[in-house]
Amino acid sequence: MTRGLFVTFEGGDGVGKTTQISLLRATLESAGVGVTVTREPGGTPLGNEIRELVLHSRDHISPRAEALLYAADRAHNVATIVRPALERGEVVLQDRYLDSSVAYQGAGRVLGAEDIKRISLWAADDLVPDLTVLLDLDEVAAAARLTAQDKPFDRFESEKAEFHSRVRKAFLDIAAAEPARFLVLDASEPPEALAHTIATRVSDMLANLNT
Amino acid sequence: MTRGLFVTFEGGDGVGKTTQISLLRATLESAGVGVTVTREPGGTPLGNEIRELVLHSRDHISPRAEALLYAADRAHNVATIVRPALERGEVVLQDRYLDSSVAYQGAGRVLGAEDIKRISLWAADDLVPDLTVLLDLDEVAAAARLTAQDKPFDRFESEKAEFHSRVRKAFLDIAAAEPARFLVLDASEPPEALAHTIATRVSDMLANLNT
Repeated sequence: MTRGLFVTFEGGDGVGKTTQISLLRATLESAGVGVTVTREPGGTPLGNEIRELVLHSRDHISPRAEALLYAADRAHNVATIVRPALERGEVVLQDRYLDSSVAYQGAGRVLGAEDIKRISLWAADDLVPDLTVLLDLDEVAAAARLTAQDKPFDRFESEKAEFHSRVRKAFLDIAAAEPARFLVLDASEPPEALAHTIATRVSDMLANLNT
Repeated sequence: MTRGLFVTFEGGDGVGKTTQISLLRATLESAGVGVTVTREPGGTPLGNEIRELVLHSRDHISPRAEALLYAADRAHNVATIVRPALERGEVVLQDRYLDSSVAYQGAGRVLGAEDIKRISLWAADDLVPDLTVLLDLDEVAAAARLTAQDKPFDRFESEKAEFHSRVRKAFLDIAAAEPARFLVLDASEPPEALAHTIATRVSDMLANLNT
């Protein structure tokens, strides 16, 4: 029986997932709570080998093969890192999980998002997070971060902005479909304010777990 | 639209799949038919890298991760070797495919055979063989091959014989469920006789394809 708490952090690149994971870890550890931090891809030695293989393979990897390699990484990370930590009663904080796979595939539109979700859940033996923190950054803020680099948009960056917008919408759709699991936050707020909101929610969940 | 012919060879280790593939290749090539021979795992550079990873990973690989790694190999082999050859109108001869995954998982009973079949078909984008040659070897003949090594059965070899028996039954069950796709042959017959039967069936299928 799982007794710990599985918390995942989702959102586009640069929205502050790593910062929030560090802040929550510190808060929990100072309260004496056991914490395991992991990430995908690459949370295990095998995961790192898979990531190396994807990045440096001599072949151009076909889309289904790539999706299955990432699913293999997920299966191994869940089986060897996440579940054992949950069984020890720890809080597991994971940088990207199921929802990233679905959102990025949905936005990229090469493979079906439903297929990706089904394979991911099989890989994870149906382990769904207790809480998913979605750090949401609107197009205006995302564009501001891009223009802060002080150069005009080129074609590639316009495509990037358009892709960001599709990924953002995909994440928000997933969150809307499962409101009880999601904590959706405006990632443009100050990091300390975000950290406080997240820590409060996790503390409440831990309190309910122990009663 | 696929115009070639996809022929897979299945059966336990040592039943003669490699021999029959070589003989059929020679027969087809001497008749001027284009042939591509491939195998799983490891029919592509990526497949070889995956096989190396499975065999030499520093981690003990969890069962779902291993199944997904093999599915990734299948996806890549189908996308980059099998489908292009079929589109060129060739006959593809493959050593092990879908049915091996299902039979070995079914016999090992760690994961569900139905799940493995579903993931395999997704990996292959629903590519099912036109013909599957099952080289079936009964327990008596298999035991005779083992005792021919001139030493008594140890515990490990008894387990191997029991496992062989379960794999064999799994292959026969699959073949019984899809009789139109399967050519089930007694692998204890002389290789030349087997080769003649297989070549006759493939020639008939090619003749139908071209009318």
